Amino acid sequence: MTATLITNIGELTTNVGADGDPCGTLRDAAVLIDGGRIVWVGEAGSMTGAHTVDAAGRALLPGFVDAHTHLVFVGDRAGEFEARMAGTPYSAGGIRSTVAATRAAGDDELRRRLAGFIDEMRRQGTTTVEIKTGYGLSVDDEERLARLAAEVTDEVTFLGAHVIPPEYAGDRAGYVDLVCGPMLERCAPFARWVDVFCEDGAFTAAEARRVLEAGVARGLEPRVHGNQLAAGPGVAVAVGLGAASVDHCTYLSDTDIALLAASDTVATLLPGVEFSTRQPYPDARRLVDAGVTVALASDCNPGSSFTSSMPLMIALAVREMGLTVAEAVCAATAGGARALRRADIGGIAPGMRADLVLLDAPSRTHLAYRPGVPLVAAVWKDGRQVV
Amino acid sequence: MTATLITNIGELTTNVGADGDPCGTLRDAAVLIDGGRIVWVGEAGSMTGAHTVDAAGRALLPGFVDAHTHLVFVGDRAGEFEARMAGTPYSAGGIRSTVAATRAAGDDELRRRLAGFIDEMRRQGTTTVEIKTGYGLSVDDEERLARLAAEVTDEVTFLGAHVIPPEYAGDRAGYVDLVCGPMLERCAPFARWVDVFCEDGAFTAAEARRVLEAGVARGLEPRVHGNQLAAGPGVAVAVGLGAASVDHCTYLSDTDIALLAASDTVATLLPGVEFSTRQPYPDARRLVDAGVTVALASDCNPGSSFTSSMPLMIALAVREMGLTVAEAVCAATAGGARALRRADIGGIAPGMRADLVLLDAPSRTHLAYRPGVPLVAAVWKDGRQVV
Repeated sequence: MTATLITNIGELTTNVGADGDPCGTLRDAAVLIDGGRIVWVGEAGSMTGAHTVDAAGRALLPGFVDAHTHLVFVGDRAGEFEARMAGTPYSAGGIRSTVAATRAAGDDELRRRLAGFIDEMRRQGTTTVEIKTGYGLSVDDEERLARLAAEVTDEVTFLGAHVIPPEYAGDRAGYVDLVCGPMLERCAPFARWVDVFCEDGAFTAAEARRVLEAGVARGLEPRVHGNQLAAGPGVAVAVGLGAASVDHCTYLSDTDIALLAASDTVATLLPGVEFSTRQPYPDARRLVDAGVTVALASDCNPGSSFTSSMPLMIALAVREMGLTVAEAVCAATAGGARALRRADIGGIAPGMRADLVLLDAPSRTHLAYRPGVPLVAAVWKDGRQVV
Repeated sequence: MTATLITNIGELTTNVGADGDPCGTLRDAAVLIDGGRIVWVGEAGSMTGAHTVDAAGRALLPGFVDAHTHLVFVGDRAGEFEARMAGTPYSAGGIRSTVAATRAAGDDELRRRLAGFIDEMRRQGTTTVEIKTGYGLSVDDEERLARLAAEVTDEVTFLGAHVIPPEYAGDRAGYVDLVCGPMLERCAPFARWVDVFCEDGAFTAAEARRVLEAGVARGLEPRVHGNQLAAGPGVAVAVGLGAASVDHCTYLSDTDIALLAASDTVATLLPGVEFSTRQPYPDARRLVDAGVTVALASDCNPGSSFTSSMPLMIALAVREMGLTVAEAVCAATAGGARALRRADIGGIAPGMRADLVLLDAPSRTHLAYRPGVPLVAAVWKDGRQVV
């Protein structure tokens, strides 16, 4: 790979350095990339490269880091979505209908769908994506989903504890045993993370701790779904086990906020869920003001949030959740990297991966100011231009 | 141009015919286009064409008709947007700052910007766009904007009565005389429509009637901006003069609704404005239930709604305004056509223009179910594939 200089960058979001500016913004800047990494950042006109890209005054930022998705599935639940929007009853089986469809699908169909989602995300500027299992819910199917996810990302999360599958409806303890035993054993080789849906109607705090501790004992790192539908123990469980992130965080007590602020656990907010379910949005302002690190992610899944658009997450965080544009962009890049405990992505500095997004706009503000408009002009992943 | 058959359409939105289904939906359908027009619609497998496009089960719908935009301008107002979102004061001049920048710009810069917006809209499925003047506000500049707009659309609207320009701040009557006299005279050759911003702080009902009547006398057809910021006379003025559309309609009295329902005047709703200003959304459900014809448009402009995304307008109409997906899609296609009094666009039937959008999705529902995701796979404008 030959060195590439991206120059005449009107606004460069580095996410490093500057006091009072979470984006560490540089003007009239240039970035040199080589061998998949950023090797130099500085003033336009002060460096040359074998191959030059003229940004023509447009904005360059780190690729989006989408730290929460459920992409390994087939089918959709458009009927359920329409019924929810219309306020009419809908009797199909929610997550379980996706589980049934996914179990019945072949590997090639799952691969084709996954590839389509990865391509769709890249075109919207996402360069790192976490992918959870959780639509298999049997040992064989969870292993299969973990294996397929590992073909497209290093950030695979074992979420056997997504819901109790129908065949274990009368035997919660038996299902938790399965998740913590043979299912974990078979999925761990493909996964970096272990996750659990800790919420009334899903898994209790005690069950969640058991699952996460089993995963940690097997070498995985913990993360948690919690506090989505009501106040609950999700945050306390996550912080107590040193989880990288607790995701949703729609309903938080003052104690939850204090726990998060005193910890390294990131609060990952998923406004696509609130958009698509008409739930109230989480109060990101309260979290940031308390000193909590916030990430934005899409939660792309066929039930509660079938969007993969990180630009829309940014627009919603500004419109609905009290973040400034700079905070929202930082949460969608550096925040996501923190939620995945990755120091090599989410910023633009020498040594970091060359995962970059060039906008068809003079500033990142346009991501919120021009909602819904496809503004991604070019994307580099590991130094290679992929869009 | 050779005849093209688009076949294996999983869901075809025709907007004609069916009782109880505003979209006139056909399944497993095919559409034959020739000479820029639709020449046949029917079952997949029952027709052949010289050139075949396999929709592979995906959804085809009429191109979006965006019946309200302000696209002839330069610069942007990103700083004003950020200040508004943060709730902080911002002293720059609103519309007047765009007027100053636009007056100072050369024709080529305005043309380049316009071409960029048209391209951006096509990539999002918009095949017809109305464009208003209103950032010139002098005889020469309004004529220039009308002329440039007429280079890219047949639906040009003369909006000299957008705001009172600074140089007429002490002489409202003098500005209205100018609009109704020499400015109208010079713009009319390029325009089909005359529009006025009838609202407290802009133009009174009497001034609005004078402007619209002058335009009608000069051969233009009337449309109105009204009821955006408060209840007011906009709807009554529009219906009284037989306007094609009254746009915004955020604040409506029961009398306004009754007037609209008994008229041919369309209520064009612009949810991008409410998204970008945090105003309450108009109640589209109330309008549809009363029998009013509703259109959705972007209002793309650098102040109150810098989006050009008709898919996002559909998603917002479903999330925030009480429409079903079918009603929202119909409003963004057939509704826009009604707002422009066009019988040749906004539907899929023999004789209509071949303005078509193929989605990367099995149904139009995905436009609301997958908010922010670029789902447009292909676009035909007058029978020619442009995306």
